[in-house]
Amino acid sequence: MMKRPSERAADQMRQVTLTRHYTKHAEGSVLVEFGDTKVICTVSVEAGVPRFLRGSGQGWITAEYGMLPRSTGSRMQRESSKGKQGGRTLEIQRLIGRSLRAAVDLKTLGENTLYIDCDVIQADGGTRTASITGACVALVDALRAMKQRGAIKKVPEVQMIAAISVGIYQGVPVLDLDYPEDSAADTDLNVVMTDKGGFIEVQGTAEAAPFSAEDLNAMLTLARKGTDELFALQRAALED
Amino acid sequence: MMKRPSERAADQMRQVTLTRHYTKHAEGSVLVEFGDTKVICTVSVEAGVPRFLRGSGQGWITAEYGMLPRSTGSRMQRESSKGKQGGRTLEIQRLIGRSLRAAVDLKTLGENTLYIDCDVIQADGGTRTASITGACVALVDALRAMKQRGAIKKVPEVQMIAAISVGIYQGVPVLDLDYPEDSAADTDLNVVMTDKGGFIEVQGTAEAAPFSAEDLNAMLTLARKGTDELFALQRAALED
Amino acid sequence: MMKRPSERAADQMRQVTLTRHYTKHAEGSVLVEFGDTKVICTVSVEAGVPRFLRGSGQGWITAEYGMLPRSTGSRMQRESSKGKQGGRTLEIQRLIGRSLRAAVDLKTLGENTLYIDCDVIQADGGTRTASITGACVALVDALRAMKQRGAIKKVPEVQMIAAISVGIYQGVPVLDLDYPEDSAADTDLNVVMTDKGGFIEVQGTAEAAPFSAEDLNAMLTLARKGTDELFALQRAALED
Amino acid sequence: MMKRPSERAADQMRQVTLTRHYTKHAEGSVLVEFGDTKVICTVSVEAGVPRFLRGSGQGWITAEYGMLPRSTGSRMQRESSKGKQGGRTLEIQRLIGRSLRAAVDLKTLGENTLYIDCDVIQADGGTRTASITGACVALVDALRAMKQRGAIKKVPEVQMIAAISVGIYQGVPVLDLDYPEDSAADTDLNVVMTDKGGFIEVQGTAEAAPFSAEDLNAMLTLARKGTDELFALQRAALED
Amino acid sequence: MMKRPSERAADQMRQVTLTRHYTKHAEGSVLVEFGDTKVICTVSVEAGVPRFLRGSGQGWITAEYGMLPRSTGSRMQRESSKGKQGGRTLEIQRLIGRSLRAAVDLKTLGENTLYIDCDVIQADGGTRTASITGACVALVDALRAMKQRGAIKKVPEVQMIAAISVGIYQGVPVLDLDYPEDSAADTDLNVVMTDKGGFIEVQGTAEAAPFSAEDLNAMLTLARKGTDELFALQRAALED
Amino acid sequence: MMKRPSERAADQMRQVTLTRHYTKHAEGSVLVEFGDTKVICTVSVEAGVPRFLRGSGQGWITAEYGMLPRSTGSRMQRESSKGKQGGRTLEIQRLIGRSLRAAVDLKTLGENTLYIDCDVIQADGGTRTASITGACVALVDALRAMKQRGAIKKVPEVQMIAAISVGIYQGVPVLDLDYPEDSAADTDLNVVMTDKGGFIEVQGTAEAAPFSAEDLNAMLTLARKGTDELFALQRAALED
Repeated sequence: MMKRPSERAADQMRQVTLTRHYTKHAEGSVLVEFGDTKVICTVSVEAGVPRFLRGSGQGWITAEYGMLPRSTGSRMQRESSKGKQGGRTLEIQRLIGRSLRAAVDLKTLGENTLYIDCDVIQADGGTRTASITGACVALVDALRAMKQRGAIKKVPEVQMIAAISVGIYQGVPVLDLDYPEDSAADTDLNVVMTDKGGFIEVQGTAEAAPFSAEDLNAMLTLARKGTDELFALQRAALED
Repeated sequence: MMKRPSERAADQMRQVTLTRHYTKHAEGSVLVEFGDTKVICTVSVEAGVPRFLRGSGQGWITAEYGMLPRSTGSRMQRESSKGKQGGRTLEIQRLIGRSLRAAVDLKTLGENTLYIDCDVIQADGGTRTASITGACVALVDALRAMKQRGAIKKVPEVQMIAAISVGIYQGVPVLDLDYPEDSAADTDLNVVMTDKGGFIEVQGTAEAAPFSAEDLNAMLTLARKGTDELFALQRAALED
Repeated sequence: MMKRPSERAADQMRQVTLTRHYTKHAEGSVLVEFGDTKVICTVSVEAGVPRFLRGSGQGWITAEYGMLPRSTGSRMQRESSKGKQGGRTLEIQRLIGRSLRAAVDLKTLGENTLYIDCDVIQADGGTRTASITGACVALVDALRAMKQRGAIKKVPEVQMIAAISVGIYQGVPVLDLDYPEDSAADTDLNVVMTDKGGFIEVQGTAEAAPFSAEDLNAMLTLARKGTDELFALQRAALED
Repeated sequence: MMKRPSERAADQMRQVTLTRHYTKHAEGSVLVEFGDTKVICTVSVEAGVPRFLRGSGQGWITAEYGMLPRSTGSRMQRESSKGKQGGRTLEIQRLIGRSLRAAVDLKTLGENTLYIDCDVIQADGGTRTASITGACVALVDALRAMKQRGAIKKVPEVQMIAAISVGIYQGVPVLDLDYPEDSAADTDLNVVMTDKGGFIEVQGTAEAAPFSAEDLNAMLTLARKGTDELFALQRAALED
Repeated sequence: MMKRPSERAADQMRQVTLTRHYTKHAEGSVLVEFGDTKVICTVSVEAGVPRFLRGSGQGWITAEYGMLPRSTGSRMQRESSKGKQGGRTLEIQRLIGRSLRAAVDLKTLGENTLYIDCDVIQADGGTRTASITGACVALVDALRAMKQRGAIKKVPEVQMIAAISVGIYQGVPVLDLDYPEDSAADTDLNVVMTDKGGFIEVQGTAEAAPFSAEDLNAMLTLARKGTDELFALQRAALED
Repeated sequence: MMKRPSERAADQMRQVTLTRHYTKHAEGSVLVEFGDTKVICTVSVEAGVPRFLRGSGQGWITAEYGMLPRSTGSRMQRESSKGKQGGRTLEIQRLIGRSLRAAVDLKTLGENTLYIDCDVIQADGGTRTASITGACVALVDALRAMKQRGAIKKVPEVQMIAAISVGIYQGVPVLDLDYPEDSAADTDLNVVMTDKGGFIEVQGTAEAAPFSAEDLNAMLTLARKGTDELFALQRAALED
């Protein structure tokens, strides 16, 4: 009988909270918490687009990700003092950017760039999926702010996006891995979905042993359950 | 009726060749060609391991990936003159490294490091999956060379690894996308498998529209067909 | 009659709060708030010292400072993606490190290094002085944690350190400048003090017009009043 | 009875010389010597201003500082081969730039940039204050050169700036510390003044023990005496 | 009696081959082989010139050089992961660029830039001279391609350029050193010539003992013999 | 009738001076002047050698080269603020290092490293050859200093090295080009020689038109005349 270190049921998420307007300067600013994982997601709006879009009339969304040096169990060297962002950081911020660009039709943004910054204050597993989930709420706030200051005429429709990690832990598919579970899992799968049930990204890695198509389908089913809960929380947060 | 730009059938691979002993210095050296995509994969053996493994008695496998500036349709700036490797490069070489570490039990390597270098001479889509497929053959040659020079007592068992890209092109799942197909595909999925049928990595990205669980399963079925062909080619090459 | 933008009296500080144990991984972790300025200060303990101290039996304290990209009114480029820390960042972290090294006799630390990380979540003026004030509390917690895990035999005596900015605003010396006041001030002076009334650092800059010795003395008097309030808050926080 | 290593009286400066036209290419070029400390200060004029001033009609002054690798007792690694300027270098060049911008109304420069380069040929304490003192003379020469080549219509009024270091050595305030004195001083204070007696910058650091307001005032009095001598030397040099 | 490790006569070159159209994307693409030394030389054409030539109506030729990590006997660290190109790389690519700029009147190119990329696939001595020899053939192909796509009205006259290394080995001047010979040679001389017999570059280095004017002249005579053979091979390749 | 811009005879050098003990910290320190070209050459001695020589009992000599930003007619950006040394800098310092390693048998140095730093204070052509000529004198002083402090038992024999640039100006071979001559020369040749008449380095570049073997020999003859004068000046300087 498998027992999770967190003592949660296999399909049970951690407590998730979404705190809007967490900092005052950004057009959108959300603190997202998945249990002990805490990430500040801000969305900043700037006039102008990268060179390859100039004159196109369309906007752009890009993302950056960082971790405070002591967000983790042992201190990590600051990437600014190392002089470069590591491969894991670049991989995560590319994933966040791709995912959020699926949330809105870039043509509705005018020639504006939306910078998504996800900064991990405290890490306990699942920081990339928490980032995507929180950033989508901050994105809605930023679009509303753009409308208010006249940068766009109407708030464009947003396809809500949420993300969750699932895995195989001691042979059993489990939802929303925290750090001790993630470290011991056989397989780790990050899933990004739309609230209409489509997949935006599926990234699975066998850690110990290869996984089967059945394993994959079981994990995807769990991921859908998890993201459904997240979509409800996003909606509730945005209605406040 | 969908027609691929390459005029191949939906489940038809490009011609794949694996040329062993392509360069003379490396312990393993393979030129892998998937149609017009050409990658030199070398495996270099060095005594010693990274700090976190010192004294463990086990070895390490790591990978680096590069593209010649004019391997592509328009010239790319050389990463060495830019002063850093881009996010795509780092993402790909992390994928190659993880995949090949699944091929062999690191404990059987002694405290040696195997550097896998995949350098794209000519690109036409699928360079990362070609790299993994070619590198696995070069890895076997490198292990044999280690045995011959006495660095290890016996050639360890290798779990053969192959990789292929699949996608949804004009609504139809297709195998082994070349560059024009990849650019126009709705979904792009890279799959790394073992010759026993397990998954090592599954990385899918919705480019235009979200994809469904059915789409995903259809693509995985194609991927299995493709990798089965690749495993046969790897075996044939290694028997020469 | 001078009126501050903040409507505070000339010698009135903003509301200051010190929240200990703000994040869970670091040996010391304090959220310090001076009005809308919010900084997370962590202290991390690692065995070992820089090369120039090896074998000396004494410890070391060093500091790093960062700002989240949208902690400010308009988004700043992330220093990790620029590839280097700017001059202002380096100047501030050198100041924080020097100041905190005055808090404790390094010989009492054994050959351990204490990393102070000050990360600005939201900026509204006075981030460097808030950082020093908060970090001194986190330092005490870190020393207690070192004692508990046996890294040191007893908690060494700490000379409490606090810092405040003062300035000349419309000809009048004022205490604890927020961002609008700082931008419009004629002179900006950062003062770091001990709770015995000594100066650790005095850094004054004429922004518009040169300042006189009288101006300087009036500002130093205000700074002493401000730091006295901060020492009381530090003591109260540490007694909780 | 305190005795300085240099055998100078407590309020005695080293011999200071200012050699104009030291190199031939720069618009202003001064070799400044404070005893064994020798710095080449050049001012270079270029048409154009940084982006944030374009179209403003006003000019800009910026500074860079460097040390020859063997200007010091033991060889320092060259910052160009390290790949970045260190924190101390950036801190000093920011100080030099701020100080010299106080010397002249930037609106009188037209849209021109004046680059101040201070390169230490031989170091024996006080390089930053020597740099400021020498650069102010080179600035006057550069303004005259600008007038001669028609870049400006008249030479703008220059508020002369000079700088000196003072400290507490064995309990006694002393003027113009050389390297052995600086290394052993309890407090180190750099003071930048105008020839009308105002302060531009005051930067004091307690090295061993905190300093008092009385210490500070005694040091500032010495600094005024020192800069008065420097202003006389600057005037004499410019009258040659 | 001197005997070369390669068993070649003192004035005997290795087998040289020039394979045009080696890769498909570049305007010019040649694989050049000098024995076991193999270099891919591509020429890429881009509209536009560096800033210092804008508006001049003339074109530019520049070169970059790289080595695959395991082109050599032991693996070299990838320069892109080191973050910079080494001195040897920069020296070689400056030499290649200067040499090829002598091949064609830049005024005949219009405001276009030709990027020469020389990437060493396998190294066995003489990579820089092989690069120049191969790049000159690729340059001709690139000019023909420019003509075909209308970037220039006619193919300009090309002054053919070839390069060879010569040396003093055990007291005897020898032609076309491979790696074992180069490592043991007393003097190493790289010579770049035109097919009219003029010198473009002469770079000689005494490795063990100084060399005399007689040595130099003997080596230059050998170099002329070698480049004459290379010019014949270039002509033959271009006539195919 | 060719007339040099400098009005010197074709075989006439500029005035050359060698000032020993120019700065006080370095073991060897020479200011070398070739007319308006002025370079500070220091030699610094440090115990220890690079990794590849550890345990060999032999020493190492390495060189670095830099230019003050306004040593030239228009200001160059400081390489430390650019974040890397340019190709020209690296090429020159490699040349200086190779040349000086020919001056002394590295086995006589013990496991010590001699750092040669050549910093150009004012540039007017020929900085690299002036650097080599001056550094050889500083090297002798450094060896004497090593003997005095007991780092070596006796001063090893030094093979004196000097360097000069020659060129073809308006069809005529000329000695010791200054900047205006160098800019207008058809060919530029740097020659490094020993005082026994052997060549250490010969580096010739055709700027406008290819040069012939006769040109080369005429230039080498001039170079020998020039270095003979330099050897006399070096000897005189060292006898002071």
